[in-house]
Amino acid sequence: MIKRVAVLGSTGSIGQQTLQVVRAFPHRFHIVGLAAGKNMELLAKQISEFKPSLVYYQDKKAYLANTGYEFLSLEDIARHPNVDIVVIATSGKSGLSPTLAAVEAGKNVALANKESLVMAGEIITNVAQKNGAQILPIDSEHSAIWQCLNSEAQKATRLILTASGGPFYRCSPAQLEKVTVEQALKHPSWHMGKKVTIDSATLMNKGLEVIEAHWLFNMPYDNIKVIIHPQSIIHSMVEFIDGSIKAQLSYPDMRLPIQYALSYPERLNNPRLLRLDWSHINSLTFDQPDLDTFPCLRLAIETARKGGTYPAVLCAADEVAVELFLSQRIKFTDIANLVKQALEHHQAVACPTVEEIMAADNWARRKVLDLIGAN
Amino acid sequence: MIKRVAVLGSTGSIGQQTLQVVRAFPHRFHIVGLAAGKNMELLAKQISEFKPSLVYYQDKKAYLANTGYEFLSLEDIARHPNVDIVVIATSGKSGLSPTLAAVEAGKNVALANKESLVMAGEIITNVAQKNGAQILPIDSEHSAIWQCLNSEAQKATRLILTASGGPFYRCSPAQLEKVTVEQALKHPSWHMGKKVTIDSATLMNKGLEVIEAHWLFNMPYDNIKVIIHPQSIIHSMVEFIDGSIKAQLSYPDMRLPIQYALSYPERLNNPRLLRLDWSHINSLTFDQPDLDTFPCLRLAIETARKGGTYPAVLCAADEVAVELFLSQRIKFTDIANLVKQALEHHQAVACPTVEEIMAADNWARRKVLDLIGAN
Repeated sequence: MIKRVAVLGSTGSIGQQTLQVVRAFPHRFHIVGLAAGKNMELLAKQISEFKPSLVYYQDKKAYLANTGYEFLSLEDIARHPNVDIVVIATSGKSGLSPTLAAVEAGKNVALANKESLVMAGEIITNVAQKNGAQILPIDSEHSAIWQCLNSEAQKATRLILTASGGPFYRCSPAQLEKVTVEQALKHPSWHMGKKVTIDSATLMNKGLEVIEAHWLFNMPYDNIKVIIHPQSIIHSMVEFIDGSIKAQLSYPDMRLPIQYALSYPERLNNPRLLRLDWSHINSLTFDQPDLDTFPCLRLAIETARKGGTYPAVLCAADEVAVELFLSQRIKFTDIANLVKQALEHHQAVACPTVEEIMAADNWARRKVLDLIGAN
Repeated sequence: MIKRVAVLGSTGSIGQQTLQVVRAFPHRFHIVGLAAGKNMELLAKQISEFKPSLVYYQDKKAYLANTGYEFLSLEDIARHPNVDIVVIATSGKSGLSPTLAAVEAGKNVALANKESLVMAGEIITNVAQKNGAQILPIDSEHSAIWQCLNSEAQKATRLILTASGGPFYRCSPAQLEKVTVEQALKHPSWHMGKKVTIDSATLMNKGLEVIEAHWLFNMPYDNIKVIIHPQSIIHSMVEFIDGSIKAQLSYPDMRLPIQYALSYPERLNNPRLLRLDWSHINSLTFDQPDLDTFPCLRLAIETARKGGTYPAVLCAADEVAVELFLSQRIKFTDIANLVKQALEHHQAVACPTVEEIMAADNWARRKVLDLIGAN
């Protein structure tokens, strides 16, 4: 049986790797939808290769000039009857609305976008459950947990998320003050998009993952632990009621969790995925995260516990602050400070609707620009 | 529902730990059978505590004087209608016959005795399958693999057994020549019976485990790998068809695999089992086994590939050689030499019956004594 796949965010890092997996299994997966925001040239190439029936490009003018397709929204594609599984590989808040559209239509979602669940985890998981839609994680940590939970989810008592520690593991606060964009983009073990690479350097990414894990696996925050594991070989672990721990291991390669989400409940033999070579693995090391030097991790978890519209503000403020850092308008350490200040100023709404979440997102983006005097 | 448990070998290390697990869950497990070979005093205490209806002691005279029970054989207990699960915790070849009796009667067997499967893996697994009996491993490595395979056994492509390396990890052949019994009995991570502790020091134990894994999980020898992992935290791993690896972790404590085998398919919360404390685990290390310095591992696997009555000779010759070493009649390095010589002299039978396996066992025991001029 061929699965019909729509990839939202097909020109980004996860989107391109998703297409690599699909190319390896032409008899298993069929691309029926592609969507991109910024890279018309690459999207045009992908359209010509995969000939999807459903296409989206953010700039409508360029879209009409280049694709020859009827114009559809991301949500139109996500809920389209010809789609079996929707890969949400867009970055930032743009993932939320199509994720909701997909689960409302009862479609399984392979989710690489963290922000959807961080902003609206309660709404998305409720709607998914109501409509029999599954959320299949693509993040390597959540895929690891999902694989370890396999058929024993109700016996899990604790999730242990591993973090590489990023390029500034063991740096002092003084060293972090002087970090350049170039240094922050050099991740020691993963090649990823710019936003998530900077979030990995601040550990905000791990904080967002804790929140994502909370919603995906219905686990209380007190039972989710983060440990530093610089080699990025153990992708995460689950502790069960009897104290037994299961871990999932592989080289850091996003194609494995992408493939697992697409093939689930099957596993497929892809020779392109390197097998761990134990003759070259001498040591796996572990350490505690330094929450004082990297305040974003603690901030994210505290924010998640408060709930309401706070997590949306966390995401939005971080997204803007990371952009400001990438354009060299603020220091690396200002990212955490700006997010913290935005959260402190926020008048939160409890049990928010999607509209209220979006309003909080908008407010936070403006607030961060206010705070640096850019508005 | 209470499971009715018979423990064969109740006064040994695994037997005593099995009773510790049973004590922790009086509403889950009920001891209906106890059997011991050598320690009448402890057996009498266990009988007085657990009041089993079925009892065995090797010395019939002592048995009749101390127990007041009707005399039963190990096999009588293993196949008794009042028994739901039989824990085979006897050492050496004495496990084979009651294991067969149990699976012939369709009973689930919690197997701590390696020799049964090494000597007669094909017979035992065939009989078990025919009678709907499950063999539930108690060895920490096999329990780890079993836990990782959980509901994905058909997608496994490789088993990775970890070995602590024993007390003589990284020793030279010259150093091994001078090893004392006291040094060999000091295992760095596990407290076990004497036979298995010496087998761990020679790596013969890991060889027997490879053979056991082959039969338990129907995995070709080419797809079973051994790696040294001195901390004994990762108890073993499974590689799946997509290259993803699952590992099982815990402190080295046999009560966890014992409890898992008893409670399967449940897991039970036992506060006496320590949870891994990640603030104290800094590094897990890995290395390749040194097959030249520790020839027993290679010898065991080569013997297993030959099949027939060879594995029975391996077990029996090793058992006698280890006893000779423990009584200081041979050197540590003579263990491997004697086993090798016995195998070289053996006239093997292909597809042997249980009787032929037992005959090979007897032959090998005499042969080793011949070889050192003791007969």
